[in-house]
Parts: sequence; structure tokens; C-alpha cells
Amino acid sequence: MRYVRFGPPRAERPGALDGEGRLHDLSAALADIDPETIAAGLPRLDDDTLAARFPRVEGTPRLGSPVARPGKIVCVGLNYRAHIAEVGASPPREPVLFLKAPTALAGPADPVVLPSWSLSLDWEVELAMVVGTRIGAGWSGSVSDAVAGFAIANDLSDRSMQLDRGGQWTKGKSADGFCPLGPWLVTPDAVADPQTLGLTTRVNGVTRQEGSTADLVFGLDAILAYIGSVMTLLPGDLVLTGTPAGCAMGMAEPAYLKAGDVMELAIDGLGRQRTLVEAAR
Amino acid sequence: MRYVRFGPPRAERPGALDGEGRLHDLSAALADIDPETIAAGLPRLDDDTLAARFPRVEGTPRLGSPVARPGKIVCVGLNYRAHIAEVGASPPREPVLFLKAPTALAGPADPVVLPSWSLSLDWEVELAMVVGTRIGAGWSGSVSDAVAGFAIANDLSDRSMQLDRGGQWTKGKSADGFCPLGPWLVTPDAVADPQTLGLTTRVNGVTRQEGSTADLVFGLDAILAYIGSVMTLLPGDLVLTGTPAGCAMGMAEPAYLKAGDVMELAIDGLGRQRTLVEAAR
Repeated sequence: MRYVRFGPPRAERPGALDGEGRLHDLSAALADIDPETIAAGLPRLDDDTLAARFPRVEGTPRLGSPVARPGKIVCVGLNYRAHIAEVGASPPREPVLFLKAPTALAGPADPVVLPSWSLSLDWEVELAMVVGTRIGAGWSGSVSDAVAGFAIANDLSDRSMQLDRGGQWTKGKSADGFCPLGPWLVTPDAVADPQTLGLTTRVNGVTRQEGSTADLVFGLDAILAYIGSVMTLLPGDLVLTGTPAGCAMGMAEPAYLKAGDVMELAIDGLGRQRTLVEAAR
Repeated sequence: MRYVRFGPPRAERPGALDGEGRLHDLSAALADIDPETIAAGLPRLDDDTLAARFPRVEGTPRLGSPVARPGKIVCVGLNYRAHIAEVGASPPREPVLFLKAPTALAGPADPVVLPSWSLSLDWEVELAMVVGTRIGAGWSGSVSDAVAGFAIANDLSDRSMQLDRGGQWTKGKSADGFCPLGPWLVTPDAVADPQTLGLTTRVNGVTRQEGSTADLVFGLDAILAYIGSVMTLLPGDLVLTGTPAGCAMGMAEPAYLKAGDVMELAIDGLGRQRTLVEAAR
């Protein structure tokens, strides 16, 4: 299944797409798509049930993040070898973790507004996992049983704030809007193999990132087990799994994002994001 | 006013202490103390109202974190000069920020269970602010208007996981139970001057940390304004303001915490925490 949240910011309603891509409003059966409803189990609905019980939504409403109010966003850094090389780092012996502020979440087509301090905003397409069950120390399950679904995330990162201005990466990765998520939350049964998904980023029509989750240094099971050994993951938490090569930072002359630029991110089976960069307000 | 959350883990009820320190159950007026109720405004209740309308709670129930489900925990690092010196760092030109996972929150007397990987667990007494209003870029208010209250936090940090095992500080600071908070959420009107509060940590009866918020490199207003310029703070978010000198890490032979150790943390007017360190389970 493909779930969405649609409507104005902070007033999104839960929805689902049927096999033809038509949007149905799930409000009658589901308060929202958030830690509580994910913990309780999202309803599994076939096309006949969607058609019979859930009204069609006409037009093309704005989509929000397909998950609301995650308890935390845990990110794995430096998890594709070619990206490690392009930023001049060494392959980590164990996963590099950092957190992104949940206030960074945005819809998959919301404009990205440059903060006034932003000098070097960079793109990072990533496979995001939405945790579906409690994962603590000693966990040894499989991803398909442990996640509520998958989505595209853009781990937007201002490199000067991340690296040059004192402190931790989180500072350059947590501005409002720095985590567009979606368009969809895709359940594991609808993803053939999450370990062989192609990921791409195009900027102003030029392909910049092109990778596959087959190239992850630490695979999806290993990531969940490792994070669970460090801190408990709860339903609704997000896990971002790292970005492949092709960031602006890796270019001889980095073409950091500027107002007017358009990013298009895609992951096999998870749809695509298209976001416009806007000047500081 | 002094608010608490009392009862078993994940089933706490909201309460308040009257002037004599007697606990009253606020459940009849307040669902919980969390981002939603903080945003709506916590009820202001004098002793007569507490006595007339809210039942006394007998005995000494467990206290939980006085705030539930914060959207994020933003921490300022290296914010007391003597602590900067003891860890061998340089004074930052702007605040060092990192995030702690909200799953790290615990009650003020809950035992701290050593994770199996913990080699070097260290204490950090900190003044915590509970955000009461939206604070974004351009904010220039005063702390007393912007916070719902203050509390004691212990920013527990496993130094080997924080510094030696690849990645960001958050990894050593986000284990379950690594953020005891409380005992109370104390409203700003009940704190004479949050910029001159004494803070202490005793370990097994020996005073290890002794400082004053007067020695903060970046003061409370400046911290809120800075964080708000980087990411929006929302009601219920926690801000930890840094720790004074006296961590184990600063000792010639660091006496990191081990099972059986007892930490006692106190801040003027905010009560005290007493936590026992327990062996890995």
C-alpha cells in the first residue's frame, strides 16, 4: 500500500492511493499517520475496500510528510563508499549516527526556503525507513517485519553550518524544511527488495546522484540492529540510511543550491520528489 | 508553581506541589504535561484551588520526567569556561549544538542502567528549559516569557561512545535513561533569577561539580535566540544549557560511573535528583 498525508500544513489528513494511483481519504478510519496509529497498526485496505468505503479526493492536493510527529529522526552518515570518498572521509568501522530535528520535516513538494545563514546547501537523496515496532538492544529481526514502510528523504545539509561553524553536524541538517519526506509511505510488501533500489537526484535537470541501496556499507538490518543497541527505536521513528555519491560537496567547484534551483529525487518504487529552492524570506 | 508527572513509567499522571510540598493530582484538569498542553497553557493554580479541587496524593509515588514526549531535546555543548578547559577544548565563537534522543528521558530517581557497551559513563548537571512558545528566526524575547519552566537535567554521556567510536556526540548521549529530568517543572515566576542558579553534582557523597549559571558563556536569552535562528523551537521542546566543570572526563584519572554509584544533582530552587547506577541487564 501507499499511504499519504494530504492537505494544508499542520492540517493534513491521512489517505491512500489505490492501484490506479487515485487518492482516497482515510479520515473515517484513521486519525493520522503518526507514532500512535503506526504502533496500533495501519489498516490494510485493498482496492475494493478503498473504493467502497473511502471517498475519492479530487484534484491534486498538497502532500505533507507521510508521517507526522516522529519521536526522532536517526540518520546514518557515510554509508556509501563513493560518497565517503567524495567527502574525503574514511570508511567507518561502525555506523556513524546523528539526529535531525523533527521540525525539519516537510512535504515532498514543499519549497525549500534558504535560511538567512545558508551559504552552501547541499542535496542528499536517502532511503528512509519508518519504524513499525519497538527495536531495542538484542533485536535481530528482518527489516520487512520491523518497518511500517519506506519513503524518499532528502537529508538537506548546509555544509558551512554542518562543518565550519563549531559543533555537530546536526546544526547544518536541522533547519525547518531540511527533511522533505515522501511522496508516499510504501509498505514493505509493495517493495520487492529494499536492498536493491536505485536512487537518483537531478538538479535543474542534470543527474547528480545515481546509486543503489545494494552499495550500502551497513545494510538495512544491520542499521536497525545497531541503532537499537544504542537507543530504543519506537514506532513512527524515522531512520535515514545514508546518501550515495554525487553531492555538491564532492564537486571540484561545488554548485551549492541557490534560489530558483529545482531538485528531483527518485527511488525505485517510492515515487519522486520535486522541490524548488526559494530565497530567504 | 511546581508541576510533576507521577506514577509508573508510561502511565504517569500530571500533578502539582502546593506551598507545603504536598502532591495534588491534576488529572481532572489536565490530560498530561506534554507539547499539546504546554502549547495550550498549563493551568495556574494557587494553594486554595489545589486544596479545594484537586485530590491529595498520599505516599511518595515514583516521579517521571515532568514533561512527556518533547518534540526534540536541543543541547548546548561547551558552555561553561572551566568545563571547556577541563575537556581540552577552545571556547566556541557561537553555541555548539547537538540533539539528544527523546527516548533518553527518564524520571529523576529512576536507576540509570549501564548499556552493555558503556565503558566511560559521565555525569553532567544542566539547567533545562522547557520551551513554552514558538521561537523562530528573529525571536528576541525574554526567557521568562518564552519558557514554560525550568528543571534539572543530567546530560549523561558515555565518553567512549561519544568521542572514540566514529561519528557524532549524539551516539554517546542518547541511550535510554541518559536524560533524567526533574523532579519538578518549575514555572519562571517561582525562579528568582535563572541566570544566577547554583548547580552541583555529588557522586557517592563527594562533590564533583559546583557551578553557577552566572558563568554561562552564552546566556539563556542568547541560547534561545540562536537555536531559534537555526531551527524552530516549539512548546514542549527541551533545551539543555551546558554543564559546569567537574566531569569525570576532566579528572587526572577519570572515575567514570560504575554499578552501585549514586549521583545527586541539585540546582537552586529546582530540587534535587538522586539516581543509582545499575549494571547492564
